[in-house]
Amino acid sequence: MSVTKPTVEQLAINTIRTLSMDAVQAANSGHPGTPMALAPVAFQVWTTALRYDPAAPLWANRDRFVLSCGHASMLLYSMIHLTGIRAVDHAGQVLPRPSITLDNIKKFRQLGSPCAGHPEYAEAAGIETTTGPLGQGCGNSVGMAIASKWMSGTYNRPGLDLFDYNVYTLCGDGDLMEGVAYEAASLAGHLKLSNLCWMYDDNHITIEGETDLAFSENVGQRFEGMGWNVVRVADANDLGALAKALDAFHACKDKPTLVIVRSIIGYGSPNKANSHGAHGAPLGEDEIKLTKEFYGWPADAKFLVPDEVPQYFNEKVGARGAAAHQQWQAKFDKYRAQFPQEAAEIDAIVARKLPAGWDAGIKPFEANEKGLATRVSSGKVLNMLAPKLRWMVGGSADLAPSTMTLLDGEKDFESHNYAGRNFHFGIREHGMGSILNGMSLCGLRAYGATFFVFTDYMRPAMRLSSIMHQPVLYVLTHDSIGLGEDGPTHQPVEHLAACRAIPGLYVYRPGDANEVIECYRSILSQDSHPAALVLSRQNAPTLDRTRFAPASGAAKGAYVLSDCEGTPQAILIGTGTELSLCVEAQKQLTAEGYRVRVVSMPCMELFGDQTAEYRDSVLPPKVSIRVACEAGLRQGWDTYIGTGPFVGMSSFGGSAPATLLYEHFKITASQIVSHAKIAIEGVKE
Amino acid sequence: MSVTKPTVEQLAINTIRTLSMDAVQAANSGHPGTPMALAPVAFQVWTTALRYDPAAPLWANRDRFVLSCGHASMLLYSMIHLTGIRAVDHAGQVLPRPSITLDNIKKFRQLGSPCAGHPEYAEAAGIETTTGPLGQGCGNSVGMAIASKWMSGTYNRPGLDLFDYNVYTLCGDGDLMEGVAYEAASLAGHLKLSNLCWMYDDNHITIEGETDLAFSENVGQRFEGMGWNVVRVADANDLGALAKALDAFHACKDKPTLVIVRSIIGYGSPNKANSHGAHGAPLGEDEIKLTKEFYGWPADAKFLVPDEVPQYFNEKVGARGAAAHQQWQAKFDKYRAQFPQEAAEIDAIVARKLPAGWDAGIKPFEANEKGLATRVSSGKVLNMLAPKLRWMVGGSADLAPSTMTLLDGEKDFESHNYAGRNFHFGIREHGMGSILNGMSLCGLRAYGATFFVFTDYMRPAMRLSSIMHQPVLYVLTHDSIGLGEDGPTHQPVEHLAACRAIPGLYVYRPGDANEVIECYRSILSQDSHPAALVLSRQNAPTLDRTRFAPASGAAKGAYVLSDCEGTPQAILIGTGTELSLCVEAQKQLTAEGYRVRVVSMPCMELFGDQTAEYRDSVLPPKVSIRVACEAGLRQGWDTYIGTGPFVGMSSFGGSAPATLLYEHFKITASQIVSHAKIAIEGVKE
Repeated sequence: MSVTKPTVEQLAINTIRTLSMDAVQAANSGHPGTPMALAPVAFQVWTTALRYDPAAPLWANRDRFVLSCGHASMLLYSMIHLTGIRAVDHAGQVLPRPSITLDNIKKFRQLGSPCAGHPEYAEAAGIETTTGPLGQGCGNSVGMAIASKWMSGTYNRPGLDLFDYNVYTLCGDGDLMEGVAYEAASLAGHLKLSNLCWMYDDNHITIEGETDLAFSENVGQRFEGMGWNVVRVADANDLGALAKALDAFHACKDKPTLVIVRSIIGYGSPNKANSHGAHGAPLGEDEIKLTKEFYGWPADAKFLVPDEVPQYFNEKVGARGAAAHQQWQAKFDKYRAQFPQEAAEIDAIVARKLPAGWDAGIKPFEANEKGLATRVSSGKVLNMLAPKLRWMVGGSADLAPSTMTLLDGEKDFESHNYAGRNFHFGIREHGMGSILNGMSLCGLRAYGATFFVFTDYMRPAMRLSSIMHQPVLYVLTHDSIGLGEDGPTHQPVEHLAACRAIPGLYVYRPGDANEVIECYRSILSQDSHPAALVLSRQNAPTLDRTRFAPASGAAKGAYVLSDCEGTPQAILIGTGTELSLCVEAQKQLTAEGYRVRVVSMPCMELFGDQTAEYRDSVLPPKVSIRVACEAGLRQGWDTYIGTGPFVGMSSFGGSAPATLLYEHFKITASQIVSHAKIAIEGVKE
Repeated sequence: MSVTKPTVEQLAINTIRTLSMDAVQAANSGHPGTPMALAPVAFQVWTTALRYDPAAPLWANRDRFVLSCGHASMLLYSMIHLTGIRAVDHAGQVLPRPSITLDNIKKFRQLGSPCAGHPEYAEAAGIETTTGPLGQGCGNSVGMAIASKWMSGTYNRPGLDLFDYNVYTLCGDGDLMEGVAYEAASLAGHLKLSNLCWMYDDNHITIEGETDLAFSENVGQRFEGMGWNVVRVADANDLGALAKALDAFHACKDKPTLVIVRSIIGYGSPNKANSHGAHGAPLGEDEIKLTKEFYGWPADAKFLVPDEVPQYFNEKVGARGAAAHQQWQAKFDKYRAQFPQEAAEIDAIVARKLPAGWDAGIKPFEANEKGLATRVSSGKVLNMLAPKLRWMVGGSADLAPSTMTLLDGEKDFESHNYAGRNFHFGIREHGMGSILNGMSLCGLRAYGATFFVFTDYMRPAMRLSSIMHQPVLYVLTHDSIGLGEDGPTHQPVEHLAACRAIPGLYVYRPGDANEVIECYRSILSQDSHPAALVLSRQNAPTLDRTRFAPASGAAKGAYVLSDCEGTPQAILIGTGTELSLCVEAQKQLTAEGYRVRVVSMPCMELFGDQTAEYRDSVLPPKVSIRVACEAGLRQGWDTYIGTGPFVGMSSFGGSAPATLLYEHFKITASQIVSHAKIAIEGVKE
């Protein structure tokens, strides 16, 4: 037990610890052990390294702090509170109140408190990303470090280095065991992201017991093999050693840094420290008292914040951050005078706006019977948009020649050229997704491409894009059995249903080249949700828009592509490459004297956003016979077709040329025709 | 160009290469470059190391060969054909015909051919697992090596070492970049799986170009950091070096081995070798001729198999394998005499049968208002089953205390005790899934547990369980907002819909402890599909089965839990913890004079398997008013409730105590009551 008067540093660290313990106890749930262990690490990073102006939480060149071990959320909430970070409204305006109050902390894990069980982005300024699902924060931080490098490569000018922000990430065993963190780390090493510092909480404890039950790596050796600078701190409480480690990070100019910090989970708790008992449950009132005694803290005080502590944070973080911000602002003012165009772009990035005329480069596609694969038209549209939208950047998980996502005439983003716009994520779908989230959080319009079936590999990241309302664009090609010979492992069947199930993810499946244009317009013109753009390997005819309704209808999610005279007897609804089957079916049915409407439905979520009037005009309730055709599962279609026929898949696919597979699985115009006729005749009877 | 007469080894290797080239050309799609590069590696493994009896492809102690780079499928088909592996029927009987004929190879990637684009398990004997989605084969191979070690630890007796099979895996950059392979490799190193040999095709080429666009690891160093034995082969064509590497593998007794083989993709092709042009498209007729000339092969011959080649394979693989098998059989006969019980268990594992009386240990749960969390009853049932079902083994991705999946009194599976039944997979959900698949393919009844929301992390493996018809059991707890304070990142919302979307995956969500029993019975008594057992964190009342229908109805997927007098006016359908809300709602509605039936629907897929008569008896078509209650999305429910009301979620969750969240999201008995009344009164009017 401490007997000498504690230093203000010690007081600050113990304030973080006791706030965390008290909040978890009050909530009667949560994770006290990691905040208790890592308080000195967060303290050292924030007070000595982090360039952050608490009065300007959205300052573009602020250093980012990511708590990848999101279950230790109270650590972050304590830091935000003690540092006095100001609140920011949804428009990005700084408000004259703290981001997190002591009262918020007292309501940790309660409805309405910004202090949720895990840090939720946009709930409070200072939370740079939503974490909790392990490994994701690590991936996000790589994306943020990439964004910093890209901004520096693109916008810095001699003498006017606007961008050089660092990214500090706290992570644990759970993060490092996850494949997504490995993927992101491997790419970070490859890209030599010297602005990235992961601080690994090496506490030897996991939920099931000691980490050596399942984890006996030489983590340092592994990271060295991935091209990282590895530094060790033998005791998380040793501020001097932490300072040296941070110095080593700052000194290393060609590698990301991993600081391996040996810590004791639940440090200070006489009966629970160094055991998984300190991980995921409150310590209990008695143990809290004993622990506070160990810290030299008033044993009965709750949520105690000594006056010196916020004052100290204000001096150390606030004053330093404000000065750095001020200097930066002066530099930026100079920059704006010399480079008004670039300055305007930076403004737009920070404000998450598109430049005027961003879609002026788009030219419609001419009607063509043979048509184009929608992945091909997507590649063309992407390239029509690229010149006006410099911060639309991305790439593919090693499938660019297939996903058609390369920007013509643009360079690769590599360690020797951080201004490149073409990214090579490697065969790392999950890493890509988590990196895209980090890039998007820094204002870039980031896209990533792979085969649609491999959304399964990056689903956790896609879900987080949606939880965080980030407008990440996932370009997903080879979208059905239409990819042919690669067979069932590569053929998405359930993926449209599975992606549509993610709340807030907008799933677009355009039916021809001009719908591809409209989908891009729709996707890029909003900034509050991710999009999955689902594209074909095989050709789809480019519809003659003088005969069919304009593709701009796609902006409403669904529209009447082709109508009949009078009230339709049936409505055929199609998406993607199956839209043309509906068109063909309509032709045959019309020839036989039936009145049939074709509705194109490239985006169900967008259609759901329209007024009831519009939706009823497209799908009149009185026309109860509807046939949907989509080379995926029926699940989710009942909303639109009721018990009507569905022409699609109900099993995994097969390995054969695409046209044969469509015949084999009975996804054809004649199937639509026959189902429609049976339904119409059935009602007639 | 070769001028001397080629050795038979060279002839064999070039046969593999030319068969692959010819098949890809005939299909006009596929991947010739990797088979051309790795033919010597596969040749060396099969002819000198692999213990495999082509006449007994299911021999329990055979070495396993896994082609993780599944796009190189023609390499495997060529090996199976040349080795003369016999076909096996679905009952496991060896047939008097080859597993893969030359004609099958000529129909590579065509409907009906067992030679699909990627190797599909059960399409042909010799294909040990379905591969193609990268990294999965690596994970499967770790599961197979674990199964070998477990069988040895459990069944070997002094002087009677029945099990010691090795697992050889070919993999590429794509595999090693995937997080799932990292996770599996890390665990393999931890578990010291000395029977596992990965041969890494280090060809420096990926689809986007050179691997160094995105991958610049020191792979060897990384694997050494994970506790692997690392060996290098400088030239894939150097059979002597390959032999030495295999010797090094066999000599190493305490680590898995990684052989880094430097290869040239499309080896022999004058214009496409060493470029991504050789990766994923036919070489073209002209280039094939040039390549065959380089090999000293008749330039115009197609699908040529020189007589000496199958003969050579027969001598090298066949004779050696038959002898090893025979010796093993003699040993097993001796074993059976001494250890009849263990021998019977081994028989059952190979035949994928359960022992008689396997479920005799189950005791029903007594009615209890307070009840149990279904994760708790699951833990009890698992432990009631464990004593009689020794090869039911598994564990959790570091959540055992939460998922309740620990077997009482059983030891951990660790490198010092391979007979352990409790597995610690570490915080590696995806690795766990792919490992479970490998264990299951070797006959173990493998289960793995995590939180339901983290199915997103292992979805590709779950999909492959289903494609391969493997009865893997996924135990998935914390199944809804009912987990409470951990908040949106941890609360599954879309996961029931997303899991039900996977064809062939049976999703069980039992409503009380006795339904948990019946779900386990249903899951274990079949052997042809995976199951997701979805369980609650919070309590569910244990229903009084003297008042309600017996839980055995769960075996049919859905059943009438509680009926009314006469024809129901409405049917309430519930699953999991929401079942009791339906029961409560029925009580209230009955008190108000309504006639309402409650249907429990723990497994939609199982219900779909029942006769139409049964289904109509549970959900009579004439009762059109149905209300479903489930703390997930509506998607998928329309099949049962049409346009009827759904009481559930339509957004992400929140962070607060569970009971408050249920109120907040309006998932309550009173909501069900009010929706049912509105619907009934609406029909009355």
